[in-house]
Amino acid sequence: MPEDGPVVARTREELRAALASTGRPRGFVATMGALHEGHVSLLRRARAESATVVASIFVNPRQFDRADDLAAYPRDLGSDLDVCAAAGVDVVFAPAGEEVYPPGSATTVDPGPIGRVLEGASRPGHFVGVATVVTILIDLVAPDRSYFGEKDGQQLVVVRRIARDLALPGAIVGCPTVREPDGLAMSSRNERLAPADREAAAVLRRALLAVRDAHAGGVTDAGRLRTTMLEVLAREPRAHVDYVSVADPETLVEAEGSRAGPLLVSLAVEVGGVRLIDCEALPAG
Amino acid sequence: MPEDGPVVARTREELRAALASTGRPRGFVATMGALHEGHVSLLRRARAESATVVASIFVNPRQFDRADDLAAYPRDLGSDLDVCAAAGVDVVFAPAGEEVYPPGSATTVDPGPIGRVLEGASRPGHFVGVATVVTILIDLVAPDRSYFGEKDGQQLVVVRRIARDLALPGAIVGCPTVREPDGLAMSSRNERLAPADREAAAVLRRALLAVRDAHAGGVTDAGRLRTTMLEVLAREPRAHVDYVSVADPETLVEAEGSRAGPLLVSLAVEVGGVRLIDCEALPAG
Repeated sequence: MPEDGPVVARTREELRAALASTGRPRGFVATMGALHEGHVSLLRRARAESATVVASIFVNPRQFDRADDLAAYPRDLGSDLDVCAAAGVDVVFAPAGEEVYPPGSATTVDPGPIGRVLEGASRPGHFVGVATVVTILIDLVAPDRSYFGEKDGQQLVVVRRIARDLALPGAIVGCPTVREPDGLAMSSRNERLAPADREAAAVLRRALLAVRDAHAGGVTDAGRLRTTMLEVLAREPRAHVDYVSVADPETLVEAEGSRAGPLLVSLAVEVGGVRLIDCEALPAG
Repeated sequence: MPEDGPVVARTREELRAALASTGRPRGFVATMGALHEGHVSLLRRARAESATVVASIFVNPRQFDRADDLAAYPRDLGSDLDVCAAAGVDVVFAPAGEEVYPPGSATTVDPGPIGRVLEGASRPGHFVGVATVVTILIDLVAPDRSYFGEKDGQQLVVVRRIARDLALPGAIVGCPTVREPDGLAMSSRNERLAPADREAAAVLRRALLAVRDAHAGGVTDAGRLRTTMLEVLAREPRAHVDYVSVADPETLVEAEGSRAGPLLVSLAVEVGGVRLIDCEALPAG
């Protein structure tokens, strides 16, 4: 851990220079800033397993389908650098847009069908944006291990898919979701919730726990599991459901009929104008 | 140069193992086999500039838009390995399809508009196939320099674009086209030409030289330069023009009106059922 905080690289060239003499293994955490305890858990895991820890802070315009959502995304580099310093990050890559997408940049990475369902259906182009920036960042950093949160379940599936398909350097490591005391998954979006909505938002976790309990109790019908979630969500009038999903954890194809597992259960719910997502992996029965 | 010929790696894992203890810099030449003097010039250049030379031999199904063209593509691994051995290649990656495209593979790399004109317009999906396989191979090999022929001019533009956009490891090096005595560019497709067609095929180079001479003589009007090519091609009844192009060498947008250069002049012509391409870079005037 550097005593004076991380080296901050603003360009591809500065990043290359900063990494040139660092030790292996190299751990990498890609973020859009607004760092919270969820990110910290990734940075700590990377710190524990790596000689060198690299974090990127870049609000990726290409993964936002709505300009207002992009504009509203919180940005505070100074505070984020403090978090990185406290977590023992060695190098922070905080590039301007043209360093990630050079002039004339036109190349896109498309993860295929898994990027067009769920979040990809609600947010057209989102996962092409995610896949493209993750490819660029992992190729730039050349890590031995990249750490992603399990909370963004579909994103983790997409990242694993493109990393395998394109032979991106290093391994992809999924890390458990960090939660508030009432179960709400940590997210940069949570700070936009008004107090009453913040309280109501705990319903996402309650819905997932209800499904987990039902599945553990022997319910294997996918339709029944979706209904279980919807019933819990219906009891919270502030929650407006975008989707609930019970799907194959690799292909993200919706499960039909009786399925023992493994399954990826996920949901997207709007509370007070803020769109929240969460998920839960169900083991093989 | 290994005394017993190159190490042949058939899987990603074997490639990783073969590269583990090799020296840097590492030079890489991606091929579809059927190696000829054009490939040999790339391998020699890589040999001269590298501690370790890696060649890949893989007929990439995703860059063929026609099944008959894929089926007709020449394959002779034994002969190709002899060529690699003679050129001092250290490691040959000759994978089966599922090693390049693992089960469930669905990720594609799209170079954008430059992949949809010229060859991309005549062969839909071609450059998505090229961009995807080049990304995979360069990420697998992690070379310091990758060598590509200038003969496939648009391909070189696409490879430079994706390498820059996605921050692929190492530099992209373009190498001069190797030609037969009559000027025909070396190509695996040439062996499919019947004798009379082989003779007629020299018209592609004559058309390019006519444009080069006209440009050197002060002709800067893009339309006039295209007409110059078409006039030469019209004199060869066996030649059926697919396209002639005078374009910006980075964006591949067709030039209009008077343009001093630099320009990329290219053409695709069918001779005796075999589609041939060639190109010439015109310097800034």
